[in-house]
Amino acid sequence: MTGTILFAHGSRDPQWRVPFEDILKKMQALSSAPTSLAFLECMTPTLEQAIDEMVETGLKQITVIPVFLAVGSHVRKDLPTLLATARLKHPDLALEVTEAIGEQPAIQEAIATFALAAR
Amino acid sequence: MTGTILFAHGSRDPQWRVPFEDILKKMQALSSAPTSLAFLECMTPTLEQAIDEMVETGLKQITVIPVFLAVGSHVRKDLPTLLATARLKHPDLALEVTEAIGEQPAIQEAIATFALAAR
Repeated sequence: MTGTILFAHGSRDPQWRVPFEDILKKMQALSSAPTSLAFLECMTPTLEQAIDEMVETGLKQITVIPVFLAVGSHVRKDLPTLLATARLKHPDLALEVTEAIGEQPAIQEAIATFALAAR
Repeated sequence: MTGTILFAHGSRDPQWRVPFEDILKKMQALSSAPTSLAFLECMTPTLEQAIDEMVETGLKQITVIPVFLAVGSHVRKDLPTLLATARLKHPDLALEVTEAIGEQPAIQEAIATFALAAR
């Protein structure tokens, strides 16, 4: 069993997390595999907390999805640092990470389709 | 004719704009209507510059797409302020704005589908 963590930026605005909760609900409607959210700033759980919670349930494999539209310092620097720390803490965990969601052609197409239809 | 502006956050990292350019190319492959990018911070054109350029070509209608995953202060405060300034500057322009792309169910589904397939 592989757990999936949606890793997003976070905000002081409590409404900011709603779309990420919506994405999580859509995943949970399609799969019974463990899924959770994690945030870089201002919101909890942190990535460390989300990984710890999954490891405590016995999971040995986790894939982190950077829910960022593009790659800047958060995905290029902050996230690898957090992952390196988690790998030291959980040496038996297989911890993978994907590209940022904004780099995926299917997601870019969904955004382009919405933008064209909105005119 | 309605112009469409993809309005994104911006970053000091020059590679950060690549996914937004990819989305723009996908739109331009599907439609000959005027499209451009604009950024809140660190990158150009700014939203003001992008609107001015479209108005100079004679466009009377522009739709701004907030390419943000969620609504925080950038979409709730910064963007309305920029739009109000643009409406004062161009009183004959019909300037519309959509919800943030992260609030669209079809885009949330594309993200959920990618996340589930990535395990």
